[in-house]
Amino acid sequence: MAPVEFVKGHGTENDFVLLPDAEAELDLTPSRVRALCDRRGGIGGDGVLRLVHSSHAPEGVDTGGTEWFMDYRNADGSVAEMCGNGIRVFVRYLLDRALVDGTEVAVATRGGVRRVRVDGDRLTVDMGPAASPVLPAAPSVSVGERTWPATGVLVPNPHAVVFVADLAQAGPLREPPAVAPHAAFPDGVNVEFVVERGPDHVAMRVHERGVGETRSCGTGACAVAWAWRRHEGRDPDTGTLRVDVPGGTVWVTERPDGHLELSGAAVLVAEGELDARWWQHQA
Amino acid sequence: MAPVEFVKGHGTENDFVLLPDAEAELDLTPSRVRALCDRRGGIGGDGVLRLVHSSHAPEGVDTGGTEWFMDYRNADGSVAEMCGNGIRVFVRYLLDRALVDGTEVAVATRGGVRRVRVDGDRLTVDMGPAASPVLPAAPSVSVGERTWPATGVLVPNPHAVVFVADLAQAGPLREPPAVAPHAAFPDGVNVEFVVERGPDHVAMRVHERGVGETRSCGTGACAVAWAWRRHEGRDPDTGTLRVDVPGGTVWVTERPDGHLELSGAAVLVAEGELDARWWQHQA
Repeated sequence: MAPVEFVKGHGTENDFVLLPDAEAELDLTPSRVRALCDRRGGIGGDGVLRLVHSSHAPEGVDTGGTEWFMDYRNADGSVAEMCGNGIRVFVRYLLDRALVDGTEVAVATRGGVRRVRVDGDRLTVDMGPAASPVLPAAPSVSVGERTWPATGVLVPNPHAVVFVADLAQAGPLREPPAVAPHAAFPDGVNVEFVVERGPDHVAMRVHERGVGETRSCGTGACAVAWAWRRHEGRDPDTGTLRVDVPGGTVWVTERPDGHLELSGAAVLVAEGELDARWWQHQA
Repeated sequence: MAPVEFVKGHGTENDFVLLPDAEAELDLTPSRVRALCDRRGGIGGDGVLRLVHSSHAPEGVDTGGTEWFMDYRNADGSVAEMCGNGIRVFVRYLLDRALVDGTEVAVATRGGVRRVRVDGDRLTVDMGPAASPVLPAAPSVSVGERTWPATGVLVPNPHAVVFVADLAQAGPLREPPAVAPHAAFPDGVNVEFVVERGPDHVAMRVHERGVGETRSCGTGACAVAWAWRRHEGRDPDTGTLRVDVPGGTVWVTERPDGHLELSGAAVLVAEGELDARWWQHQA
């Protein structure tokens, strides 16, 4: 068996194990995805990005005009459509290995073809439009004794954005914040706490449903930017919002057509080969 | 600059970044150690094991008769003497790459020369003797409302071992357990919770000082075995104790000369090269 190659990289410390697998030869089972993402028994990551020639993409995936398909998996082994931080790492790798060139790279994903703009270290991806969920009542978020009004946002996954005076007010966030009305988010909700840092500049913390507090969340930054522009009579056309996350900085631009563009760097940390015995053992 | 090679491996999920550096050419600063051990921005590990020819060991290290020196660093960048799980990963690598052979491998460490016995997958290291600390009063450990009597053990780092009816009684262990008398352990103490599983077979959880709950702790398993043999009139010569830790299983044998031998497997997960730009950026 040929050695299994891997690359470790991150976007604002949302980290991934990338598996170059152009010919789609790897038997990437859910248990292998979980083992790869295990931070002590494996490599460690928030997800796996398998890089496959678009000609080998699964049936039903729209690969029109692309050369590469990003087969994204969550750390729990499940399949996901897209990941705004992951696709930057994916494109950084393609550029680094000269597998693509130019200033715009189209990538096939289960969520459709995504175009990534390249501007030096900064990579920009169209995250699609955000929307306001239909809610029976204005949502609120509580941590301990404290409750704040929240803004619901779909990107399209659900978010509740809270504007606070100080990010420390959210406490250690070891438990999911309570969101009311609970029935409005039956499958759970990501919660962002946001503080103003300057003109068109905020900082946020995020609690991701099913995960806990994380260093970065691409859709969360988009939800924050969308809510920010609609907060207290702001002009939604103020251009680009800088969003500091615990793992770095991203920028979100709302286009005239309502699409949100997420910009930021992506870092390649290392590359290598998995131990053959280890890989066999995880099947 | 030559690429910087690395290996990721673990012993009972106590995980390490191993850096093969025979000629001691790497500029391994504390900030680089921290970056390597960072689980999102780097490779991720509980520590770094630099592999250096004994002829290049730092002055003052006793390398008598050894070929290799294990330069062990904690994840916070500090230097440490020895690590019972780390040295197994170190020797597994030496065997895997045919850098040593035979059924006993001597490794120089800052804590002296350590001999590791090789028996198939199982590697056994002499952890030295344990001792009872001189305490002003019998120690006790508290979590929440519950308090247990504890046994103090030096291996030689300090431990407080608690025998419980159920490992769940220790709760989520998000905070360090309270140990009394506090003055007995001015620099903090590792706390082990132990439950009997069968004849010469226990399971444990461990809270490491300055770290939190971990998947395994080599000196902790030794402290547990030492305390177990002296608990409620047991025969201290009952041979080998099997100790299940959250990350796997180790075995501890108390020799007639009082030395504790720690046995267990070590797993190599992957090997590769660090990204040159990333490495430069961490200096």
